[in-house]
Amino acid sequence: MKIYVIGTGPGEASQLTGKALKALNDSDLIVGYQVYIDLIKHLVPDKETFSTPMKGEVERCKYAVETASTGKKVAVISSGDAGIYGMAGLIYEVLEAYGNLEIQVEIIPGITAAASAAAVLGAPLTNDFAVISLSDLLTRWEDIEIRLRLAARAGFAICIYNPSSRRRGDYLRKACEIIMSEISSSTPCGYVKNIGREGQESKILTLEELAAEQVDMFTTVIIGNSNTRVINNRLVTSRGYRV
Amino acid sequence: MKIYVIGTGPGEASQLTGKALKALNDSDLIVGYQVYIDLIKHLVPDKETFSTPMKGEVERCKYAVETASTGKKVAVISSGDAGIYGMAGLIYEVLEAYGNLEIQVEIIPGITAAASAAAVLGAPLTNDFAVISLSDLLTRWEDIEIRLRLAARAGFAICIYNPSSRRRGDYLRKACEIIMSEISSSTPCGYVKNIGREGQESKILTLEELAAEQVDMFTTVIIGNSNTRVINNRLVTSRGYRV
Ligand SMILES: C[S@@+](CC[C@H](N)C(=O)[O-])C[C@H]1O[C@@H](n2cnc3c(N)ncnc32)[C@H](O)[C@@H]1O
Ligand SMILES: C[S@@+](CC[C@H](N)C(=O)[O-])C[C@H]1O[C@@H](n2cnc3c(N)ncnc32)[C@H](O)[C@@H]1O
Repeated sequence: MKIYVIGTGPGEASQLTGKALKALNDSDLIVGYQVYIDLIKHLVPDKETFSTPMKGEVERCKYAVETASTGKKVAVISSGDAGIYGMAGLIYEVLEAYGNLEIQVEIIPGITAAASAAAVLGAPLTNDFAVISLSDLLTRWEDIEIRLRLAARAGFAICIYNPSSRRRGDYLRKACEIIMSEISSSTPCGYVKNIGREGQESKILTLEELAAEQVDMFTTVIIGNSNTRVINNRLVTSRGYRV
Repeated sequence: MKIYVIGTGPGEASQLTGKALKALNDSDLIVGYQVYIDLIKHLVPDKETFSTPMKGEVERCKYAVETASTGKKVAVISSGDAGIYGMAGLIYEVLEAYGNLEIQVEIIPGITAAASAAAVLGAPLTNDFAVISLSDLLTRWEDIEIRLRLAARAGFAICIYNPSSRRRGDYLRKACEIIMSEISSSTPCGYVKNIGREGQESKILTLEELAAEQVDMFTTVIIGNSNTRVINNRLVTSRGYRV
């Protein structure tokens, strides 16, 4: 009776850890969002899989718990890291709802989008930073606004997940406007789309330009702070070393 | 003429990515802090290495750039992720100081301590969070205080790197006091020492208890927010799914 919750990294197989690969191999069933299963299926072609459409997170976790309670080893996968806007928390909550069955849970971390996006852009997250999702499905937009505002005021670099969706086409613009009321509109920023996947694209631009940019939900955005500069076409936040 | 900047993850070899391993193998020279070289040396036993004591970061990067400019492939390693309080930013700054030699730089992300600590503790970083270092070597303590205060006020979970050093024995207590002036002193927290290394230890405790705790520099601390609970001895931040 075991559930692995596995972060599979940004996309390409080479960005999984050895531990994640081993756990996938050790599992009888792999549960996840179909897009993420498709990205890793070739690594474990013979495994049974179970997927639900987006927003089926609770259903997926319940299926995983029920299957694990029959004695099978189940891998629940998240893209990026399993704990950062991933399935790890929900698995514990679902287990609690089931009365904490004697199922062992092992969380296996993965490369989160903040780290993989930063690596593509340069080194924007070398000092303190905040990670904020613009999805208001589960968090009130007013709370997200407060986080954006105080994070900018405190001088954090800011990494934005879920910057957009069909319903939230103008949220990134709204977020940039809030941040621009706190820091310079010429602050260097960047975004990366489809990190480690077919169609990877990245762009470095100012905060003001970012406010006018259209990005999709497969994009991670990084907003610099007052120590962020563009060096040789890379986004770099100085920590303050004397070079 | 190539420099890889490689995040080697928390410690154990199984938490390196395939890409990181491949880059280590492809390198002629491995540059890093000795403790981190020791953790990965057995994976590439025949490689030349160069290390300096702690605080020798600039010297290490200069050596890497000079060696790469002779045509060698150089791996500069950081524990965790290469960009998060790692060497990636400094490499770009040193290259700039050398007049941006035509050296190609590739940043290879690793599992950062926030993700590996969260996985050991449960799932405390499932929603927005801030990452803050308590080291005031390069950042003014007053700025760190502001970040702690505003991060707590905004409802971020907070992940603390560099919580302690010989000179900064009481900084974690000071940080907790600032945070307690913003959020409940019974907020669930946790820390992990030596993640993925000999002597891994973790503890879950309240914010008030954390303020009285002695931790060392090989420790990562996570402070919950108002949605963080202890479920079956695990630290879990609810995102708000209806289970
Ligand atoms: C529900 S969150 C999942 C985050 C994931 N658990 C992680 O740690 O990276 C989805 C958001 O993560 C970001 N993201 C995840 N994978 C990405 C990729 N390969 N390229 C760009 N952004 C990605 C995007 O901002 C996307 O909207
Ligand atoms: C200079 S920072 C390097 C961070 C690293 N680049 C990363 O992304 O994890 C050093 C701090 O990272 C944290 N850390 C790094 N590796 C750790 C480990 N194996 N166990 C616990 N904490 C660790 C500790 O807070 C430590 O003081």
